[in-house]
Amino acid sequence: MSQAQVAVIMGAGVGLGASIARRFAREGFSVGLMARKSETLATIQTQITQIGGVALAFPTDVTDQAALENAFDQVRAQLGSPTVLVYNAALFSHVGLLELTPEQFESVWKVNCFGAFLGVQQVLPDMLAQQRGTLLFTGATASLRGSAGFAGMAVGKFGLRALTQSLAREFGPQGIHVAHIIIDGMIDTDWVRSMVPNKADHTFLLPDAIAETYWQLHQQNSSAWTLELDLRPAVEKF
Amino acid sequence: MSQAQVAVIMGAGVGLGASIARRFAREGFSVGLMARKSETLATIQTQITQIGGVALAFPTDVTDQAALENAFDQVRAQLGSPTVLVYNAALFSHVGLLELTPEQFESVWKVNCFGAFLGVQQVLPDMLAQQRGTLLFTGATASLRGSAGFAGMAVGKFGLRALTQSLAREFGPQGIHVAHIIIDGMIDTDWVRSMVPNKADHTFLLPDAIAETYWQLHQQNSSAWTLELDLRPAVEKF
Amino acid sequence: MSQAQVAVIMGAGVGLGASIARRFAREGFSVGLMARKSETLATIQTQITQIGGVALAFPTDVTDQAALENAFDQVRAQLGSPTVLVYNAALFSHVGLLELTPEQFESVWKVNCFGAFLGVQQVLPDMLAQQRGTLLFTGATASLRGSAGFAGMAVGKFGLRALTQSLAREFGPQGIHVAHIIIDGMIDTDWVRSMVPNKADHTFLLPDAIAETYWQLHQQNSSAWTLELDLRPAVEKF
Amino acid sequence: MSQAQVAVIMGAGVGLGASIARRFAREGFSVGLMARKSETLATIQTQITQIGGVALAFPTDVTDQAALENAFDQVRAQLGSPTVLVYNAALFSHVGLLELTPEQFESVWKVNCFGAFLGVQQVLPDMLAQQRGTLLFTGATASLRGSAGFAGMAVGKFGLRALTQSLAREFGPQGIHVAHIIIDGMIDTDWVRSMVPNKADHTFLLPDAIAETYWQLHQQNSSAWTLELDLRPAVEKF
Repeated sequence: MSQAQVAVIMGAGVGLGASIARRFAREGFSVGLMARKSETLATIQTQITQIGGVALAFPTDVTDQAALENAFDQVRAQLGSPTVLVYNAALFSHVGLLELTPEQFESVWKVNCFGAFLGVQQVLPDMLAQQRGTLLFTGATASLRGSAGFAGMAVGKFGLRALTQSLAREFGPQGIHVAHIIIDGMIDTDWVRSMVPNKADHTFLLPDAIAETYWQLHQQNSSAWTLELDLRPAVEKF
Repeated sequence: MSQAQVAVIMGAGVGLGASIARRFAREGFSVGLMARKSETLATIQTQITQIGGVALAFPTDVTDQAALENAFDQVRAQLGSPTVLVYNAALFSHVGLLELTPEQFESVWKVNCFGAFLGVQQVLPDMLAQQRGTLLFTGATASLRGSAGFAGMAVGKFGLRALTQSLAREFGPQGIHVAHIIIDGMIDTDWVRSMVPNKADHTFLLPDAIAETYWQLHQQNSSAWTLELDLRPAVEKF
Repeated sequence: MSQAQVAVIMGAGVGLGASIARRFAREGFSVGLMARKSETLATIQTQITQIGGVALAFPTDVTDQAALENAFDQVRAQLGSPTVLVYNAALFSHVGLLELTPEQFESVWKVNCFGAFLGVQQVLPDMLAQQRGTLLFTGATASLRGSAGFAGMAVGKFGLRALTQSLAREFGPQGIHVAHIIIDGMIDTDWVRSMVPNKADHTFLLPDAIAETYWQLHQQNSSAWTLELDLRPAVEKF
Repeated sequence: MSQAQVAVIMGAGVGLGASIARRFAREGFSVGLMARKSETLATIQTQITQIGGVALAFPTDVTDQAALENAFDQVRAQLGSPTVLVYNAALFSHVGLLELTPEQFESVWKVNCFGAFLGVQQVLPDMLAQQRGTLLFTGATASLRGSAGFAGMAVGKFGLRALTQSLAREFGPQGIHVAHIIIDGMIDTDWVRSMVPNKADHTFLLPDAIAETYWQLHQQNSSAWTLELDLRPAVEKF
């Protein structure tokens, strides 16, 4: 088992998830990568290996309690107990309320909120035993605003924000730093670019720039912890 | 089928739900009462009959899509299409995050949020066809604050609030008034009184006083609609 | 001296101020009208007299402490101690931050916020002696959002909102109902219409509709008081 | 004139102001120190000189427009145009609303809000010419909550927050990073300690820890800027 500290990224995609994973790997963390797509995890793992870091892939559905327990058991066995958990899973949904099925509504909530609850229950006991740990949650514009056509996402993201407040108030005094990062704009990824092909370069958030703030949050002294901050491009309308 | 306008109360308990039902019945509405407990619905129905109003009971689990569809089919057949929907269902939960099971976490969300989504999908099509309708949602302190031990409730109530914002933005311009009432204090019911037996009378919200505000919201002119307001006792600390 | 209850409207213009004044006059209140323009006050006074109500005009600058004290002395002598105070004064300002002079910045704050503080200090002692009173404050979109070009207004309106919270927490338990009404849209007045001549009729807030909510707030039972609500047209984008 | 970048600290006291000044000085900034008390400025200047940094004192009342213009003229002449402005001035006020005089109410607003407006007008033109600059504003619990007895402070701090939003929306797209830091707890200074002599060490925010976040905010990439964050001790109740 590794002596390095361990960070787990739930929802490790090729954009922000990968940047956060690399950022923590650069500082010597062993990184556990969780998401459904094995190929994506393999890509990120390769990136980290190339910079001399350590990462392992644990393909799983973050909303499936049994699968997630198994994945965290493997993390503990192969890397050690996480001191950092990043919940970065998200399911995008933009559709009129009457076109949204109850199954979709529930699925969107599960990925944007319920999986975070499951993940936190996996890592908190060991963190509390050590009296330290950092829980970082990726929010969005929909964390603060229920726009037309975004009922599903907003219910999930508002819920995730509620969860972070309850966690901070219950576990902050026991040494657990909880932070909620509201990303108010479009992240520069291939997938987002394909949806808005004519949007100018400088109007996107760079994943590495976001990841830097995640790292700084983890570094904060416990006398002055941030629970919530927003991030947006200089040119963003809001 | 009745010619009167129809209001449906989802989560019709003996406290606030009953008061709202009576308030609308007094104005001539036929009231459909939904909740799991038949005896409670029968009690409210009797109260309304005694004041010369019309109410029918539709016992159902508001989080069960098939059962709810059936209940609304009966409402439409026996009373007519609702022009007012009040979502008053709530499931209280106060427990440390690590004591909360995933099943409980999901159930609390379903009662506090998912059922509202299901109910709205039942009534919106007819409301949109008539270009009028009022959707009233009961919020709580946990709608704005994730306190320690309240992760489950706050996730549900934040989610409900998100839903109301999305509904207002999507359907307000089509004549649907959406309002979210944040009740910041303890409502005067037998059940609440039994939990805090020594709390003074004037520190509770009176259900009839709350119901009056629900009625006034329904009465607002469409040039000046309220989306959100809070209600609390004069003496409440907040 | 009149036996009727007394309401004072600070910032009594021909739009919302006049509507609120008429609404309270219709219920038997004697109304004291304050604003700088005597002609405007005379117009409102005539409207109220025509519906059989009682109103007196007290022309004054609501940001001038000495003038305001004198005006309230006259109110008390001629009508009696107010049980309702409505602060409706506002100074519109939309200009880039570098074009705003310090004098303008301060004036905008004084009308939008400082005058409310002065008015409250005039009426609170008698209200506290009677253990009842209602303080109603007109907010705006700028109460919650500092937009580009609106620094002056937002500083004033955010400040006014802060004042209402402090008042509610200090004086609510002593029987004083404080309510802050956020008007999120354009009110239908000649002045506003002249600025946006092509805007459709149904996109404005009707002053009488807003005034109805002010009246309902005053009527609320002290077990269920609203501190804050928003008002906007059904079709408003927000 | 120095070739180094210049940071000005308005409201440079021995606690947080001094820590921020030292943090920027350590990175090679020339620091301009503004506050009324010459002795305090001299103390900070000595601290910075001892760590090999450059600082100059400009004693001034930050709410006095003419004095402030003169102070900034001296900064520009002696150090150069600021690329960083930190507004850290604050005037504490905790008193019942009826005990607060209009003069005090206005003074509290001037220190907590108006001075920031004056300072921003001094530095923005050069920042805009260079298309870069960082404006950092110190908020407090009262930025988000108007507590009983804190009307004066909350009006000022809400206003300051409004100003930061308007600044960010107007000038962010022109390269100016605006950030508002909400400090939700007591900062560890001799003055605060003297008011709460029995409060435990680990319940205070350490000024150097706060200053680190100010520095990190200045370092953020323009694709992912924070407008607002909170800081509080791990053990703080909120």
